[in-house]
Amino acid sequence: IHMTVHLVGAGPGDPDLLTLGAATLLGQADCVVHDRLVGPGVLDLVAPWAELIEVGKRGGGPSWRQADIEALLVDRARHHGTVVRLKGGAPFVFGRGGEEAIALRAAGIDVEIVPGVSSAVAAPAAAGVPVTHRHLASGVSIVTAEQDPASDPLDWEALARAGTTLVILMGARRAAAIADRLLGAGL
Amino acid sequence: IHMTVHLVGAGPGDPDLLTLGAATLLGQADCVVHDRLVGPGVLDLVAPWAELIEVGKRGGGPSWRQADIEALLVDRARHHGTVVRLKGGAPFVFGRGGEEAIALRAAGIDVEIVPGVSSAVAAPAAAGVPVTHRHLASGVSIVTAEQDPASDPLDWEALARAGTTLVILMGARRAAAIADRLLGAGL
Repeated sequence: IHMTVHLVGAGPGDPDLLTLGAATLLGQADCVVHDRLVGPGVLDLVAPWAELIEVGKRGGGPSWRQADIEALLVDRARHHGTVVRLKGGAPFVFGRGGEEAIALRAAGIDVEIVPGVSSAVAAPAAAGVPVTHRHLASGVSIVTAEQDPASDPLDWEALARAGTTLVILMGARRAAAIADRLLGAGL
Repeated sequence: IHMTVHLVGAGPGDPDLLTLGAATLLGQADCVVHDRLVGPGVLDLVAPWAELIEVGKRGGGPSWRQADIEALLVDRARHHGTVVRLKGGAPFVFGRGGEEAIALRAAGIDVEIVPGVSSAVAAPAAAGVPVTHRHLASGVSIVTAEQDPASDPLDWEALARAGTTLVILMGARRAAAIADRLLGAGL
């Protein structure tokens, strides 16, 4: 049996921002394993016969552990043959898609990536903000405020000096501290 | 008459990476003004009655100037009412969408943004490379090697230290010089 898990980006939520390739896969998949953040209009595209499994991570409530999600994907791929792992945004931009791809390949399961529209670009665009603009910003840095300081070090002083637009995901809780640090570095 | 220009991202080229919203707009537009880099499969979605105008910028050959593209968009919006400006990738990531939005709004024309999948993320994904990965990279910096050094300064030494994955667009010609500079900064 040929086993494939498609790691698919669902975009920021609105089905209009789903890709044609993602929509096709959702209509064909036997099993769809999705994040909590995937919009309801997107899930409407899943075939009625498909097994639909939410593996949400919630602040405060019960959450799936990453290792359990990976074990579930391996198990469902062996059972169904073709599985869609549907992630909010883009699977390889803060989607932990890389970790899931490693676990699946180690289990002998093929992995196909379908990139999606990242909220890091779509949210500024919805507000009318281009993340690059000639004579203002020749680049964009997209970072997360929720990194592990021991193993995922970001150099905020370097980011302040880089000359790029800075998009900070999951930063609301630490916004004041991050702003102070960037201002202190001359931004 | 209500005049709107939709600044629409076409993604990296494959129609499967076009968004559902972009596909709908292409089928409805009276006029589509597109880059040379937009894939032929994407243009197949344009309605047969629509006016289709290529405003390609080529290395070596004749090119449209940015100011002429903006004047064309204003003129076509006044003529047709609804125009799609279709750009390779995402309109607000190195797409000069911000400049076109400013020119259109100055002319009293509404602008709607439809973000797309950026090649800066899709190309690494196609090669199996996640641009972020827990314990390896808490962010990604997307920059262009073709900035104007006088007005669009990037600090390559800061980028080398930032702790992010670095995606360099339009960098093939300057790859060796950029690599030397990044290595010199400790990357």
